[in-house]
Parts: sequence; C-alpha cells; structure tokens
Amino acid sequence: MSKTFDIAVIGATGAVGETLVQLLEEREFPVGALHLLAGNASAGQAVAFRGKNLRVRDLVGFDFAQVRLAFFAAGEEVSRQYAAQAHAAGCSVIDLSGALEQALPMVPEANAEALTGASAPYLLASPAPAATALAAVLAPLRASLGLRKVTLNAALAVSSLGRAGVAELARQTTELLNMRPLEPQLFDRQVAFNLLARVGELEEGGHARLERRVAAELKRVLGVEGLRVSVTCMLAPVFFGDSLAVSLETGGPVDTAAVAALLERQPGLELVEDGDYPTVVGDAVGQDELYVGRLRAGLDDPAELNLWITSDNVRKGSALNAVQIGELLIKHYL
Amino acid sequence: MSKTFDIAVIGATGAVGETLVQLLEEREFPVGALHLLAGNASAGQAVAFRGKNLRVRDLVGFDFAQVRLAFFAAGEEVSRQYAAQAHAAGCSVIDLSGALEQALPMVPEANAEALTGASAPYLLASPAPAATALAAVLAPLRASLGLRKVTLNAALAVSSLGRAGVAELARQTTELLNMRPLEPQLFDRQVAFNLLARVGELEEGGHARLERRVAAELKRVLGVEGLRVSVTCMLAPVFFGDSLAVSLETGGPVDTAAVAALLERQPGLELVEDGDYPTVVGDAVGQDELYVGRLRAGLDDPAELNLWITSDNVRKGSALNAVQIGELLIKHYL
Repeated sequence: MSKTFDIAVIGATGAVGETLVQLLEEREFPVGALHLLAGNASAGQAVAFRGKNLRVRDLVGFDFAQVRLAFFAAGEEVSRQYAAQAHAAGCSVIDLSGALEQALPMVPEANAEALTGASAPYLLASPAPAATALAAVLAPLRASLGLRKVTLNAALAVSSLGRAGVAELARQTTELLNMRPLEPQLFDRQVAFNLLARVGELEEGGHARLERRVAAELKRVLGVEGLRVSVTCMLAPVFFGDSLAVSLETGGPVDTAAVAALLERQPGLELVEDGDYPTVVGDAVGQDELYVGRLRAGLDDPAELNLWITSDNVRKGSALNAVQIGELLIKHYL
Repeated sequence: MSKTFDIAVIGATGAVGETLVQLLEEREFPVGALHLLAGNASAGQAVAFRGKNLRVRDLVGFDFAQVRLAFFAAGEEVSRQYAAQAHAAGCSVIDLSGALEQALPMVPEANAEALTGASAPYLLASPAPAATALAAVLAPLRASLGLRKVTLNAALAVSSLGRAGVAELARQTTELLNMRPLEPQLFDRQVAFNLLARVGELEEGGHARLERRVAAELKRVLGVEGLRVSVTCMLAPVFFGDSLAVSLETGGPVDTAAVAALLERQPGLELVEDGDYPTVVGDAVGQDELYVGRLRAGLDDPAELNLWITSDNVRKGSALNAVQIGELLIKHYL
C-alpha cells in the first residue's frame, strides 16, 4: 500500500475550501484521514469527498498533531489565530489567507526550488489569486526578458469575497433589472453594472492592503533582483475569474515571437494568439489552465511587453495552487 | 440681437448626438437654424430642441454651405464620406468619429491654444472619450510632473458602441438571469458578467485601432515632448461611464499633496480624496465633471503617480467636449 497523509482543510465550506477538497479527490492526492474544519457557524455542514458526505467539525479544540498537512482557507482572522498553533504542533501549513508574513509564498511553477534546504514542518502561503496567476505566466519569461517593472491592473471577480460576493452581485443585478431600489449590502456601493476601484481597506500611501500583498508576493515568488511592481486592484461585476492587464518594462527590445514560444511550451498555460483573446467566462472559469492573450510590444516603447491573463480565481488562483504546493511537499519533502 | 450660428448635427438620433443637441440647449449655445441630419435609416425621427420636436433629415443632398459649424457624431463611415465635403463648403467641422487624420484633436482644457494662427473653416476632432478624460486630468499636471510615460487601462462602458451596446448588455443579462441560453449578437461573445479584452478590430502589432487612436490623440492634445503612451482598452459590463486606471512615469519623486492641490484648482474636475474613490454609477454618469481618486505614488517607485478617473463617456467624454470646442470657436474664431 502506498503512503498516505492525514490532512486538515480549514474553511472547508467556503468557495475555495470546497474546491480544494474536490481537487484533492480529482487529483488523487494520497489522503489518509481528512479532517474538515470550520468556524462555529459552519460546523455541522457536510462536504462530499470520495462518495461520502464528511461532516465539517468545529475548529476550536482540534488537535493539529493528528495531521501532517493543513490547508488554511478560512480567511485572515482564522489563520492568524490557528496557523501558528498548527505549525507548532508539527503540522505543515499551506495558508491561503495572506495573513502570515512569516510564511513563504509559493507558486510551484515559479519558485519550487525555494523549499530546498528548508525542513518540516513547513509554513507556506499560496499567494493572492492575481499574484499566483501572474507569477505562473512570468516565471518562464523572467530569465530572458530582463524584467524591470510590472504594472498590473487586476479586475477581480466578486467571488474574491467568497460566496457572499457572488450572492450580492446576483441580488443587486436582479433588483436593478426589476427596477427596485438598490441598497448595497456587502460592498460599500453598487457593484452591478459598475466598477469599484478598491478591494478591501486602503492603507498608508493610498494603496489597498491587497495591492501591497499582491506586489510583495509577486516579488518574493519571482525573485527577480530589483523588480518594481505597481498594482491596481478593482472589483468588476463578474462572478468568477480574474482578468489581468499587464504591462512589463523589460531590459531591451521585446521579441514577441520568442515570448510566445516560451509561453506555448509552458505547462498549465494556454496562449491565445493573434486577433483573438481569452475571457473569464467561456475560457478560464472551471479550468486548471491560465489563459494568456493580447501579447504585444509597446506602441511607443519596444522594451515594453503587454499581455492579458484570465484565470479562475477560486480554482487555479487559490485552491489548485495550494494543492499543487501540497503535491510538491509530499513528493519531495514530507 | 446677439449673434447666432447656423449649425448641423450629423448623427442626431444616436446616444452622443442626442446628448449633444440637449447640451446645445442647456448651455444656451447661440444656435440660429439647427439642422439635424442622419443616415437614411434614422431620417424622419424627431429630436427635441427648445420645446419643439425637430425632424431629422437625410444627410444625402444636404448643402453644408448653409451652416457655419457641423458636429459629426454618426461614426467613421459617415465622417469619411461627408466631413471633407462639409469643410470644402466653408463649414467648420467638429468630428467625433476619429476617422479624420487631418483633423486637429482638441480638449479645450488642454490645447485650446492650438487654434491660434489657424483660420476658418476649421477641421477639428473631439478625441475618443478615454483620451478626452485623461487629457483633461493631465493638462494641469504636465508642467510640474515632467511626464515621461502614461500607462492607461481603460474599462469602457458598452455605450461606447452606442445604443446597440446598451441594449445588448441588457438583453444578455436578462437572458442569463432567466437561465436562458445566450447567443451573443453585437459583441463576439458574452459581455454580461465578463470582461472583453478587445474593443473593435486589432491591427498590426496586436494593438486595437481604438488603442492607437487614444494614444495618438492623447499625445497630440497634451503636446509633451517625447511622451510615451501605453493603452489597453477593455469592454466592461457597465452601461454608461468609463473607468480609467492610470499609472504615470514622471521626472522625479511625486509630491501627491501638490498634485492634489493642482487637481482641486482645476475647473470641471472633482477630486475624491483619501479612502474613498469615485465610480461611474452614482458619481460620473450624467455629470459634466470628471471624477478623480486613488491618487497615490508608486509602491516601489517614488517617481510613479497612480490615479483612477471616472467619466461619463457619452456626455463629458464625447458630446460635452465637442460642444466646448464649439464654444471656443464661436467665442474667438468664428
């Protein structure tokens, strides 16, 4: 019998957590015992795994010494409160919340080698979905491009805020189409047929906490010396899937054919060429692949490279990347 | 009795044309005879002006020698076919289509002085809405910032494609909410709850014609020596109003307080400061003002300035700018 691993998934009833459990099954992750955990409010619900309905238990009082690996997908608050405890109990942690500054952000396509020399238990982070998607696309290019600056404009789906975001966009849209007065609930204003220029709170200097997170994670994952990053995150009236408009400042004239060849060779990535372009609906959503299009040099600047990336924020951007980190761990390090 | 001008509006039944006629009335433009013209399909319709319903006549056969000034708001094809003829007949032309490369693009806040030394009849262009909005915001800043590069990410409303774009987003949204199968008509794919990375046709090098237009007009209007411009236009599931995410490379460390002071002093512009931000719905749409927010220096680059601009693409971005060019002409040049 081959080796199995006892695992905990925290936040198993959320959009990302549920997808994560599904991916563990689909990808035949060698799960021994699977402990599904959540906050008090969600405990008692059931989540399907390998043909059974597993009961989700209350996180409080769970003994992390029982498991080798824990995925934290329940938000910043829960990670801040329990991830260190899990790690101290000898459990490797893959955090999806962005709350743990001491965790090593990882996108296996880009910085798998960062684990070399580290020792168990590991404390790792799956970056924000936009950082994950962008890192995976830039990873095969960074050696040849001489990357100097990344300007990212990320149009995020409402599912960035979980199921509540999805429900709120649906509710607002229905109210408006039925000509009923709208009172925004989850967001600070109408998101239906509108674009919000802020996702989460703004911090000093006017940058959103999420924008800082994306920039910091992208730099750590790519590991390009002296790379500067500029990030704007906005919320779009889109249910699932992030759309990233990216402009790169590189070390010299860009050979777009050579870039296309590198991207085509990269696993997990679909390049849509010439005249066509990918969108979240119909292309990226529900897929493991990232979709890249609108590859072009600058209008005025031959050292500029522009591209458009669409990605399933819940699946590829979050749950799948976390599972891929887990796969890397069990293959070489656990 | 004060001086009046006989005027033609071509494309008077379109979203922009109708707003233009409304603005001529609201702003008490000294209109003598007003000739409303359109292609064959729209002739015979009526448009309200000063309490009367004016009949829209067929453009074919109209004698442009009857008018001093003509607004062309009927699209590229009509401008290509008739604007030169109008100009040759001694009529000053303000074109909104972008089709006339020989026309001088103008945003009065930014390059009113470009008319000095020219002589009637004038051949002028109101730039694409995104270029108009961005030029008006950057005009008061260009002297102090030492602008080197503008990276623009423009999320355009479906009304960029006129009334048909508005109707198609409404139809698609309703079909989807009623769980009916969707067949995109006007756009090449689903725009409801999606973002399209291309507006119009792509040309050589992978840039959209509209992106080239915005970049070229912005540079001509701002007149900043050596300025480089990078433009990505995408279509958002938004009915009215353009949202522009702008990142500027400047000549040195940015003093955001000084930038804010310059923007606050500028007429026609509302600066939303600190923690809040404007959106198209609720702020920009239906207003003559541009709304600016999310003013911030770069995360990694003190010479970077970022801002977010929302603008009513039909009103401020198109019809109002054209009328303001007309006001400039009649005040000093006609």
